[in-house]
Amino acid sequence: MRYDFNELSQLLEPRSVAIIGASADPTRIGGRPIATMLKAGYGGRILPVNPNRDEIQGLTCYSDIETLPEAPEAAIVAVPARAAVDVVDALGRQGCKMITMFTAGFAELGREGRGEQDRLTGIARQYGMRLLGPNTLGCWNVDIGYFGSFTSSLDLGFPLAGNIGMASQSGAFGTHLAAVARRRGIGVPILVTTGNEADITVADAIGWMAQSDRIDVICAYQEGFSDPDRMLAALNAARNADKPVFILKSGRSEVGGRAATSHTASMTGDDAVADEILRAHGAIRVCDTEQMLDFAYVARKRIYPAENSLGVVTVSGGAGIVASDEAEQQELPMPPMPEDAQAELRALLPFCAPVNPVDCTAQALNDLSLFQKFTHAALAKGGYASVICFATTVAGSAAIAPRFLEALAPLRKEFPDRLIVICAVAPPDIVKRYEDAGFLVFEDPCRATRALAAMGRVGKALTMTAAVRQAVPEIPLPPTTPDEFQAKALLSAAGIQISAERLVHDSEQARAAAQEIGFPVVMKIVSPDILHKSDIGGVMLNIGSSDEAASAYHKLIAVARKHHSDARISGVLVAPQITGGVECFMGISRDPSFGAMAAFGLGGIFVELLHDIALRQCPFDEVAAREMILSIRGAPILTGARGRAPVDLDALARSLSRLSVFAAGAGSRLVSVDLNPVLALPEGEGAVALDAVIELEEAEP
Amino acid sequence: MRYDFNELSQLLEPRSVAIIGASADPTRIGGRPIATMLKAGYGGRILPVNPNRDEIQGLTCYSDIETLPEAPEAAIVAVPARAAVDVVDALGRQGCKMITMFTAGFAELGREGRGEQDRLTGIARQYGMRLLGPNTLGCWNVDIGYFGSFTSSLDLGFPLAGNIGMASQSGAFGTHLAAVARRRGIGVPILVTTGNEADITVADAIGWMAQSDRIDVICAYQEGFSDPDRMLAALNAARNADKPVFILKSGRSEVGGRAATSHTASMTGDDAVADEILRAHGAIRVCDTEQMLDFAYVARKRIYPAENSLGVVTVSGGAGIVASDEAEQQELPMPPMPEDAQAELRALLPFCAPVNPVDCTAQALNDLSLFQKFTHAALAKGGYASVICFATTVAGSAAIAPRFLEALAPLRKEFPDRLIVICAVAPPDIVKRYEDAGFLVFEDPCRATRALAAMGRVGKALTMTAAVRQAVPEIPLPPTTPDEFQAKALLSAAGIQISAERLVHDSEQARAAAQEIGFPVVMKIVSPDILHKSDIGGVMLNIGSSDEAASAYHKLIAVARKHHSDARISGVLVAPQITGGVECFMGISRDPSFGAMAAFGLGGIFVELLHDIALRQCPFDEVAAREMILSIRGAPILTGARGRAPVDLDALARSLSRLSVFAAGAGSRLVSVDLNPVLALPEGEGAVALDAVIELEEAEP
Repeated sequence: MRYDFNELSQLLEPRSVAIIGASADPTRIGGRPIATMLKAGYGGRILPVNPNRDEIQGLTCYSDIETLPEAPEAAIVAVPARAAVDVVDALGRQGCKMITMFTAGFAELGREGRGEQDRLTGIARQYGMRLLGPNTLGCWNVDIGYFGSFTSSLDLGFPLAGNIGMASQSGAFGTHLAAVARRRGIGVPILVTTGNEADITVADAIGWMAQSDRIDVICAYQEGFSDPDRMLAALNAARNADKPVFILKSGRSEVGGRAATSHTASMTGDDAVADEILRAHGAIRVCDTEQMLDFAYVARKRIYPAENSLGVVTVSGGAGIVASDEAEQQELPMPPMPEDAQAELRALLPFCAPVNPVDCTAQALNDLSLFQKFTHAALAKGGYASVICFATTVAGSAAIAPRFLEALAPLRKEFPDRLIVICAVAPPDIVKRYEDAGFLVFEDPCRATRALAAMGRVGKALTMTAAVRQAVPEIPLPPTTPDEFQAKALLSAAGIQISAERLVHDSEQARAAAQEIGFPVVMKIVSPDILHKSDIGGVMLNIGSSDEAASAYHKLIAVARKHHSDARISGVLVAPQITGGVECFMGISRDPSFGAMAAFGLGGIFVELLHDIALRQCPFDEVAAREMILSIRGAPILTGARGRAPVDLDALARSLSRLSVFAAGAGSRLVSVDLNPVLALPEGEGAVALDAVIELEEAEP
Repeated sequence: MRYDFNELSQLLEPRSVAIIGASADPTRIGGRPIATMLKAGYGGRILPVNPNRDEIQGLTCYSDIETLPEAPEAAIVAVPARAAVDVVDALGRQGCKMITMFTAGFAELGREGRGEQDRLTGIARQYGMRLLGPNTLGCWNVDIGYFGSFTSSLDLGFPLAGNIGMASQSGAFGTHLAAVARRRGIGVPILVTTGNEADITVADAIGWMAQSDRIDVICAYQEGFSDPDRMLAALNAARNADKPVFILKSGRSEVGGRAATSHTASMTGDDAVADEILRAHGAIRVCDTEQMLDFAYVARKRIYPAENSLGVVTVSGGAGIVASDEAEQQELPMPPMPEDAQAELRALLPFCAPVNPVDCTAQALNDLSLFQKFTHAALAKGGYASVICFATTVAGSAAIAPRFLEALAPLRKEFPDRLIVICAVAPPDIVKRYEDAGFLVFEDPCRATRALAAMGRVGKALTMTAAVRQAVPEIPLPPTTPDEFQAKALLSAAGIQISAERLVHDSEQARAAAQEIGFPVVMKIVSPDILHKSDIGGVMLNIGSSDEAASAYHKLIAVARKHHSDARISGVLVAPQITGGVECFMGISRDPSFGAMAAFGLGGIFVELLHDIALRQCPFDEVAAREMILSIRGAPILTGARGRAPVDLDALARSLSRLSVFAAGAGSRLVSVDLNPVLALPEGEGAVALDAVIELEEAEP
């Protein structure tokens, strides 16, 4: 499905806006947007509507929507919930295109409210109108002075100009973020808060910003994914436009999850799924507001080195070590300076430490040309994509700052494609002078390092091949949950390697099957009603002869009858007993937002406890499957760590990819698949699923 | 050993100070301390020494140390390195007690410099003088206006008064931290930077602050541990004084480690060891400067709830979820409000979410008494030790802040034992008003949550029983590295459970031993020269009869001869083949600073890859050993996860504790011990070491 994100221009760049429920009091919900827009010099027409007044805040006021002198392109609705439906209908009739509905009292109150909300969206859709909210704090576009918001956060001052756009499901949290940005001198000219997301979502806002010339960097706060396809389309649009998306996706925790449900009408999916989906679509997940703003602050430069590296030029050995520690944590490489460059620096300053961190010692503060030369060497000879100059209070001193800036400014011009951070403790006016000269300023070398590392991740994300979700053939499923034999037959038909086995229905068949397969064999009871067959003794190993096979048959039937007197018994499975190789598991679970998700991990209790599992949205090809397999921490066990034989990765990847295609084709009735264990045999010998459980929703009768 | 940390009073509270190499220029290294102290109103006597002047900065100047009118209690030395030794000698003769040596050019330059440095300390010791530096930026004590430092960071303003003391090995990084603290309004009246630590170390500074009435909270930056015993004594002194120590220990990374070596004369130990040592002695390790200052900022309140819990009162559901996510990450519990309190809040505001986070919605901003009631309920009914009030820009608005403060101030008084954070975006003057009223102010709810969680960790650390290092009997060791049989005999004598085995020297003995032990048996070649016997086929399993045992003997001797023709062969080990249980490993390694460290983990390649290992300093008792065993992530495997039989934890803990006692008693010649595997058998059946390697340094001849 394709989305027209362009429609939001009527939300963010309207030529006229009616305020339904307009107030003369500039501190009230219906008065604030008017007061703010008048102050901000909004160039469009503001049309207040209020039956009790002729004039509001100096503007002509209209008694009702019908008497408006023109069709307003956009409308802001600040009326009680009970009046909202009629207002939307009237606006539709009048030819309005876009509604921002401040009014609360809808889906956030539960089922009844949701019904009312659905009525609103139904009517809006009927007239071809889009709707922001209800229960939204609104949006703004500083460039044209449009403030369709009643937030009081603007009392601290108007947002600054800039190239960062922000979208937030939560109004209060979105304006909080914007206010913190402002205090840090970071411009957020566009903010959209989406409230209940009856129609317009955070995804729509991201999509619009992806195609806006004004915005280069997108920040988003999101609780659940109410329309996952739209979100993925928006993320892809941003990536195609080379714009990073920094997203704070909350609801990680159990408590957070609980709060998310009680707070909004949205559904919070499983957090690991969100992590994977965002990663796969190139969004950078941040862990708090500060990290979001740090990353956005640096991203404004639009320098995203996919091959990132860090050079640290420092007057303090200590700061250099601290930054190095953090760089390693962030997997940001700090290669040493080339030998000849080290020699040159030693010639300049015998007691320097020229490796990287490049410590030019406090001496460089007495002779700023030294600092310049060391930094030049890091840029020119070290070739680092990212450079931190740690100059602490010296760079912040009013006496030295101008000379320090003078020394470094030529480097900024000579190396326009590099990220250069000055680590300084400085008053705001001095910080601004460095920033105006094109430098980034941080106090904390660790925060600087994290933000620089993130730019590398952005670079990689922007060059990553987009995950194309290929069409897959539909897989017909049986009407009810299959037993193990049937499950394996389905999977085998889907191309997944299963051990050669026979289903037998009496002891003679067991004897013959075992003979044919070759000893030793494994025998298991097969019943759709017995899920944990090991627990009741329903699996027998090491069966070494035909006689043993025959007697095992009787034992298995007896044990099944004993534990589940009315279980349906499909028969007994006879399979070769395969040993060696590495036990893995593969599985499918269904995420409410993103559908079938494939999981891969090593088998065994260790991994279950240690949660070393990779997750991908289905379907995917063998290349992606291999990447996924190799992404677990335990991957060296598969590739031949400590003298082990490497396993058949090709076969493992093939089975995993085919499982993902099977799951995607099976559709929403497929609840889960568990292949546990899949035995990954040595190279060339395959990867065999030894057990399989498929869970289905009952088919509609 | 006991340390007299009180001696540093002469460093930080001197009644008189001579400046050797005094300068009339207040921007020069020998001029700055004088200028700063004059400006700060230092009440002691300042005695400049410079042969070329009679007067310096308005003070009488003396031509040399000998002509000083009195014995200066302290001296600051700012002379060239070549003159340093003579100056120290002259000061000693004059009766000076404490030297702060700015002069650089000693151990940081390598071996020759270290020799010169040792001469300095030798002379100082001879006169009973203590020495800060050389290569130090000095120290300060704001309370008495003493500034024995030449840092230019003071140009940004004097440090503020307060109760936080700071010690830093790195001068530039220490003053950076202090400058950032000042910008944040955090008072750091004491700073000690220790430079080369020829005598006075960060540990001394921590120890002094532990006994100072002025200091409640200690921050430290440390690269290596040059005198580990002193550091542990200092940390214990701080804990005994109920003062938290927040420590930034750098050199975590490979690159950082490299830089630490090239930068200072200190040795950076293994980082996991540092982690464990700091944890065991109650210090809180921080990961960056910002975290250090966040924690110190909150710790100033001296409220350290060992039983911590978090209540979040919020006007934004989004912020509540974000804080909840972070609390879970930090293992800070957020229990729900009691049912009756929830009902009361719902009665006040029907659409609130009263669980926790307690969302009083934007409605509470129109009616601040609601915010007060919700916060009161969280404190009184919820009983949370830590509370965050998320009020964003509203609490920062000049119009609302006074009323907001008025609403909350009574709660601060009613619950003086709680930590209350106001999350606000506010200008500095408004922040200060909240702080003056006893509240903590953060912008970012995640940073607030992390800092509050840290106070709980401090509480736990302060109530933790100090690790008492009991005396252990000395263990006599053989002159050279023992073979497996000898190693096991040593360990068995130390009380560690070893499988019952025989060393045999011919095939007949092998036959008899196997018969006596009972089949199946395992047989291994024993040689001090063959370390990886499995790799050459030197281990044979599943030996089922006396004949097999006899032939195995010949095979093992042959295989050993083939691979190591001149290996010393001690014989062949015959041991019972024990199966079942859980494979674990125990080991000892020697840290250059902290001596024998015991490690425990599960066996197998999985854990090796996943680094799930616990570490403790030796020796420790069985209670500590059990705690250590249970601290690994994989512990549920030992305690009976998923229907497994719980292992014999008592036996495992006994062996581990005895191993630690053995290692401590064996002393510094013990390089390492590896017990791998130790088979932890089911409860009551013991924990048997199946293999043992002990590595020794050769004894002195």
